[in-house]
Amino acid sequence: MSVSVASPPESTSLLTALGAGLPPDALLTGDAERALHSRDAAPFGVAGRPAVVVLPETVEQVRHVVRTARALGVPVVPQGARTGLAGAANAVDGCVVLSLVRMDRVLEIDTANRLVRCEPGVVTADLAAAVARHGLCYPPDPASWETCTIGGNIATGAGGLCCVKYGVTADYVLGLTVVLADGEILRTGRRTVKGVAGYDLTRLFVGSEGTLGVIVEATLALRPSRPPELALLARFGSAADAGEAVAAIVRAGHTPSALELMDRTTTAAVAALGHPLLADDAGREAATLIVASDAPDAPERLAEMAGLCREAKALSVTVAADAAETRGVLDARRMVMPALTARAREVAGEAAAFIEDVAVPRDRLAALVDRIEEIAEEYGLYIATAGHAGDGNLHPAVVFDRSDPDAVRRAEEAYDAIMAAGLELGGTITGEHGVGVLKRDWLERELPARNLRLQQDIKRLLDPEGLLNPGKVLA
Amino acid sequence: MSVSVASPPESTSLLTALGAGLPPDALLTGDAERALHSRDAAPFGVAGRPAVVVLPETVEQVRHVVRTARALGVPVVPQGARTGLAGAANAVDGCVVLSLVRMDRVLEIDTANRLVRCEPGVVTADLAAAVARHGLCYPPDPASWETCTIGGNIATGAGGLCCVKYGVTADYVLGLTVVLADGEILRTGRRTVKGVAGYDLTRLFVGSEGTLGVIVEATLALRPSRPPELALLARFGSAADAGEAVAAIVRAGHTPSALELMDRTTTAAVAALGHPLLADDAGREAATLIVASDAPDAPERLAEMAGLCREAKALSVTVAADAAETRGVLDARRMVMPALTARAREVAGEAAAFIEDVAVPRDRLAALVDRIEEIAEEYGLYIATAGHAGDGNLHPAVVFDRSDPDAVRRAEEAYDAIMAAGLELGGTITGEHGVGVLKRDWLERELPARNLRLQQDIKRLLDPEGLLNPGKVLA
Repeated sequence: MSVSVASPPESTSLLTALGAGLPPDALLTGDAERALHSRDAAPFGVAGRPAVVVLPETVEQVRHVVRTARALGVPVVPQGARTGLAGAANAVDGCVVLSLVRMDRVLEIDTANRLVRCEPGVVTADLAAAVARHGLCYPPDPASWETCTIGGNIATGAGGLCCVKYGVTADYVLGLTVVLADGEILRTGRRTVKGVAGYDLTRLFVGSEGTLGVIVEATLALRPSRPPELALLARFGSAADAGEAVAAIVRAGHTPSALELMDRTTTAAVAALGHPLLADDAGREAATLIVASDAPDAPERLAEMAGLCREAKALSVTVAADAAETRGVLDARRMVMPALTARAREVAGEAAAFIEDVAVPRDRLAALVDRIEEIAEEYGLYIATAGHAGDGNLHPAVVFDRSDPDAVRRAEEAYDAIMAAGLELGGTITGEHGVGVLKRDWLERELPARNLRLQQDIKRLLDPEGLLNPGKVLA
Repeated sequence: MSVSVASPPESTSLLTALGAGLPPDALLTGDAERALHSRDAAPFGVAGRPAVVVLPETVEQVRHVVRTARALGVPVVPQGARTGLAGAANAVDGCVVLSLVRMDRVLEIDTANRLVRCEPGVVTADLAAAVARHGLCYPPDPASWETCTIGGNIATGAGGLCCVKYGVTADYVLGLTVVLADGEILRTGRRTVKGVAGYDLTRLFVGSEGTLGVIVEATLALRPSRPPELALLARFGSAADAGEAVAAIVRAGHTPSALELMDRTTTAAVAALGHPLLADDAGREAATLIVASDAPDAPERLAEMAGLCREAKALSVTVAADAAETRGVLDARRMVMPALTARAREVAGEAAAFIEDVAVPRDRLAALVDRIEEIAEEYGLYIATAGHAGDGNLHPAVVFDRSDPDAVRRAEEAYDAIMAAGLELGGTITGEHGVGVLKRDWLERELPARNLRLQQDIKRLLDPEGLLNPGKVLA
C-alpha cells in the first residue's frame, strides 16, 4: 500500500484500518485516482474528493470496508463503472469510494431454471455474452451496456432499448445479497420463478443507488435467446405525427422490440453524419421513428406498423427486408451518440453534454418533444432529443461549453425546465437514470410529502448514521 | 345502524364512533355476519370473531375507520372476497373487519397508455371484462378470478395460469393509493411505463397482506388483447417423465401461455369425472401435462412441444387443432376443482380441502411431486397435486374429514411436510398464495434472520401500534 503524500493526515488511521483487511493493491490513494473516482458521467452536480478508493475482491472485504468506515464515521460511496448520468456515484469529501469493479465473476449459470448468479462488477455486455453461450438472454440493454456493470444497473434501475418489449432491470432481479450499513449480510429473494414469502425487500434495493446497502451478489432471471429482429425507419414532418404513429402502434396491440424516436435536431445530426436513409433530404424531416420486431411474424408485424406510420402521415417509410438492412436501420439510432460527439467538436471551449431522462404517459410524447424544442429556443441551447418512444421515455441531450459560465447556467436551467415539463405532462423526472444528486431536489416536487417522508424513514431505518452514499436520492 | 344485542358491551363506543362517519348500512354487527367474515378460504388456522364488519364506500370512510380504530386501540383486518388460502384475511378477536367489497368501481381506462385505475373491491374477472371491451387485457388469472378482488390480488401477490408467460399481479401494479395506519394517504408509483424516482414503495405493499396499510386504489398496467390459444394434453408414465418434458420445453426456449401439471391422483380424479382425453385408460397414466401457446406461430410451437413430450416418453399426446379442441384440453385443468369436490362428497363426516402452494426451481418439479406422493402415503392422506409446472409452482390439495381430529392433525402435519419439502428442494413456502397465519412460522424457516428482522422493522415503521392485520405474515 502506498499512501499518497497528498492524503490529508486525518485519513491515515482510516487507510491503516482499511489496509488491515484488504489486499495490498486494493487501496488507491493517489491524487489522479481519487480525482478519477470523484464523479460519474453526469457533467454537473456536486462531487467531493474521496479520501481513498478501495477495490475489494470478496464479500468479506466489502464488509470490512463498510465496518471500518462506520467505526470511523466515514461515508461510503459505492461505485460501478461510473457510467451513471445522475451523479449517484459521485464522491463526497473524505469518503471511501467502494468500487465493485473487481468483483466481476459470473458465479453460476443455471440453464434449467433460466437464471444467473453473479457479482456486481460484471460488465452488462459480458454477462449477456456469458449467458448467450448457453442459449439464454439477459435483455436489459442500457446505452452504456458495453461498459456499465450489473451492480450499477440494479442500483439505478437501468432500462434500455428493448425494455418496451422485455422490461427493465428490476424485472430480472430475483434476489440480492447486500452488505448493510452495519456490515451485516442481507439475503433477499429466491431462485424460483414466483415467490411471495414476506415483504419484497429485493425491489426495495433495486434503484436505491447504494443508499440502503451495498449489493454484492445478484440472482437474475434470464430468457430464451431473442430471435433476430427486423426493423423499419419512418420519417415524419412533425413530432406530433410521429407521436400519432407511436400511439397507433400501441393502440393496435403491437409489441415491438424497439420503438425509438429521434427529434428534428437528432435526425439532422445523424443525417449530417451521412446515414444513407436520412442523407438525401436532411433537414426536411422533423422526426424519425425506428421500429423493430423480433416476433415470429415480424415481417407481417412490420408491414402493419409501416401502414400505421403511413396513416400518421409519414414522409417515407423504409422497411428492412433482411438482417443487413435491419442493421442499417438500427445504425441510425446507434449514430446518435457519435452525432453528439461530432456536435461537441463544433463547440468552442470545453464541450460537455448532459443527457436528460424524463418519462411521460405515452400519449404525451409529442407534447414533450415540442416543449423541449421550445426550451432549446428559450435558453438558446442545442438540444437533441432521442429516446424510447414506446415507453414515453425521452433523453434530451444538451451539448454546451462548460468553460462558459453562462452556457452552464442555461444548461442547468434547461435541465430543470425539462423535468418541470415532464411533471406537467403527468410524467416522472426519471425513467431509468435515477435521482442521484442532480434530481434529488426534484424528487421532492414529484413525490407527495407523505411518500417522501416514508422514503426518508426507510433510509433512516437501514442507514441510521447516514453513511451510505449520503446526499443521493434524498437531500 | 342497528347494533346487535349480541355485541359485547365494550364495543358500543367503537360502533358509535365508527357509525359517525359511515353510511347507516355500512356496519354489520349480527352474529351471522361477524361469523361469516371471521375467516377466508383457508380450512384451518387461527381466526377470531370481529366486533364489527364495516363496508366503506369511499377513501374518506376508510380513513375514518382506520383512525377511529386506532384511537380506540382496536385492530383492523382488511378483507376482499375472502378467497385467500393462507388465512391472511382471518379476523382477530374484537377487531374491525374492513371489507373493501363496496369500493368496486373501475375509475378510468386509459387505452392510449394501456392502464386502468380502479378501487380495490373490483372483482378480477369484472376488471378483465371491462378492459377487454377496450381491446385490452389484464392477464393475471388466479383460480378464484371470477370472485376474488383486485385489492386482495395485490395484497397477496396473486398469480395464476398464464403467469408463466405474462407474469404475476405484482408485474402489473404501477401505483397505489394506501391508507396508512395513522389514517394518512400514501400515493406511490406513477402512470408512466418506466420510472425510478425514489425507492420502490409500490412493491413494498404488493404482497404485504394488509399489514402495512389498506390499499384503496390501484393503477394497473394492461396489455394488448391476448390472441387465441391452442393447447395440447400429454400423458406420462411418471412425474419424472413429465418433469423432463417441462425441462425440455424450457431449455428449447419456448414460452407457453400455460404449462400445467396434474399428478397421478389428480389425473385419476379428472378421469373419473369422465374427461374424454383421460377416460379411456384411467389409472394407467401417472402425470398429465397441459401446454398452451398463444404465439403467432402457435401451431408450429405446439408441434415442437408435442415432439419434446414424446421424446420425454409421453404415453400419448393430443394436440388441439382448433379452438373447440383447445377448450376440451383446457377443460381437463378446469375439472380439477370439480374433481376435488366430487372427492369431498365421498368423504364421510365434514369434508374440507386445503390447497398448498409451494414453488421450487423448475428442475426440481418432479422431485417435489414424488416427495408429495410419499407424504400422502406417510400420513395416510388423499393428496391431489396440480399446478403451474412452468413456474415450478405446485398446489397439492388434501381432502380430509375435519370432524375427525386425527385427520385434521395428519392434514396439518402434511401441510408442514410439504413446505419442508419445498424448502429442501431450494424453493419457497409460497409461490402465490401468501403467508397469512398458516405460514408465518414457516416464514421464519425460509428467511435468514437478518431478512426477517428487516421485515419486522418495516412493519414497525409503518404500523408502530401493530393494529393493521396483526399476526399475519410476521408472527
